[in-house]
Amino acid sequence: MSDLVPALRAQSGPVDLSAIATDATPGFSGKKHEGIDALEALGPDLADLQERLFAHGRSGGHRSLLLVLQGMDTSGKGGTLRSTVGLIDPQGVRITSFKAPTPEELEHDFLWRIRKALPGPGYVGVFDRSHYEDVLIARVRGLAKPEEIERRYDAINSFEEELVEHGTVVLKCMLHISAEEQKERLLARLDDPTKHWKYNPGDIDEREHWPAYQEAYELAIERTHTDAAPWYVIPADRKWYRNLAIGHLLLDALSSFQLGWPAADFDVEHEKRRLAEEDPLS
Amino acid sequence: MSDLVPALRAQSGPVDLSAIATDATPGFSGKKHEGIDALEALGPDLADLQERLFAHGRSGGHRSLLLVLQGMDTSGKGGTLRSTVGLIDPQGVRITSFKAPTPEELEHDFLWRIRKALPGPGYVGVFDRSHYEDVLIARVRGLAKPEEIERRYDAINSFEEELVEHGTVVLKCMLHISAEEQKERLLARLDDPTKHWKYNPGDIDEREHWPAYQEAYELAIERTHTDAAPWYVIPADRKWYRNLAIGHLLLDALSSFQLGWPAADFDVEHEKRRLAEEDPLS
Repeated sequence: MSDLVPALRAQSGPVDLSAIATDATPGFSGKKHEGIDALEALGPDLADLQERLFAHGRSGGHRSLLLVLQGMDTSGKGGTLRSTVGLIDPQGVRITSFKAPTPEELEHDFLWRIRKALPGPGYVGVFDRSHYEDVLIARVRGLAKPEEIERRYDAINSFEEELVEHGTVVLKCMLHISAEEQKERLLARLDDPTKHWKYNPGDIDEREHWPAYQEAYELAIERTHTDAAPWYVIPADRKWYRNLAIGHLLLDALSSFQLGWPAADFDVEHEKRRLAEEDPLS
Repeated sequence: MSDLVPALRAQSGPVDLSAIATDATPGFSGKKHEGIDALEALGPDLADLQERLFAHGRSGGHRSLLLVLQGMDTSGKGGTLRSTVGLIDPQGVRITSFKAPTPEELEHDFLWRIRKALPGPGYVGVFDRSHYEDVLIARVRGLAKPEEIERRYDAINSFEEELVEHGTVVLKCMLHISAEEQKERLLARLDDPTKHWKYNPGDIDEREHWPAYQEAYELAIERTHTDAAPWYVIPADRKWYRNLAIGHLLLDALSSFQLGWPAADFDVEHEKRRLAEEDPLS
């Protein structure tokens, strides 16, 4: 296991995000160019391990991986998809981006739409935002009553425990940036006409609730950081470190399956003969 | 437009797949290493154009792209996903692999599960197999009556025309390999224990119906090759050419949208001031 993985794992008990430097590089002492090279170097192992998982999924296996990406606007969920998730064969990846719930989704329990998007056997599922929005924006914006938010923490823990029991590794990452870094990134979007589409005036409205969001994250992490489905807090002011960190977490999760290649459930020599001798097209 | 695109477009009228060399490289005169370099060289343009499409999708635009991949076992649908679709930011790609229909799917019209998997605005959807299975294996294996197959051709044409009218470019590719090439690829899978999971004895059962499948493809292409949603037949014995060809087709389709960057629907200077002056976190 890489040094990064234990360094990023959330502590049990109360969480103080302000005590975690957003520009730190825990578990990695190299510079930026070394971090970029280190991520690229993970590519072959990630590809090999993901293919084993996919192969087992095709062969009756029941394991899967769910990567949950949470973070404030501009924290780099999209960049993580491109730079780190993009290292994995897209054939085995299923990404779901969760927006504000639709009227139909609002008629159901908050986990309804989440269950429909879970990765099937052998897949790496990635949630760009997730059921955690239902205890984050829902708390900050008062979209649900406090007792409902409390119920949801427990519901999430039961849900994730159930996923893990059924063979899914649940990898929850909070991309942790500073308010100053967000401001710079928002200004950069405003300064570049090719990035205006990424900007929404509502982003500043949300930004005004920054302290409340940090508190909501702290509470959510504290209440849902379990042995079955732990949280990782990723310092994300440095994009290269964020990408490398998620790469190591994915590699660690895929390694934990300890999968070889599925054994043939057919007679290999017999099939070779069928193909060589009995083939009507020969 | 690249020379490859018109060279790959199916002819109108009856289709004779046996007249299309599976190891040809229509529209490209270079060697393998040049083809590999040429595909890599498409990367930046593909990324730029896909991001414009995605940006428009986020800004109220209604355009999307649907790439349909069809072909016999081992024809390289998975390799295309990895090598060509993998060049595009996974954030904007949604891949669906269609297997044999579930009991629930069989209770509905054959297009029911297809409609649920269509790409949303701004997305590149990729179908690994598709509604065409319902006129291919369904015809060869007699899973539907001839009159139902006939109905489906028309239903597909109406469906695809509707998609195009609503802003989707539908790009249908048949990966065209020879029976000899398939035999080599199946043998290679049998020879490599890390590839046994890709092999299924049923593949040879299907292979025994090779001529019937070729005929079913010829009929399907003839009946569903429309101005709105034309077919492309991709010689696919050479993997590098297959990847390059699909890359050019994607590039051509994305270019056809002729999208600039969405204009800001907010006052940029006002937002800069809000962020710089009125920010409570400054």
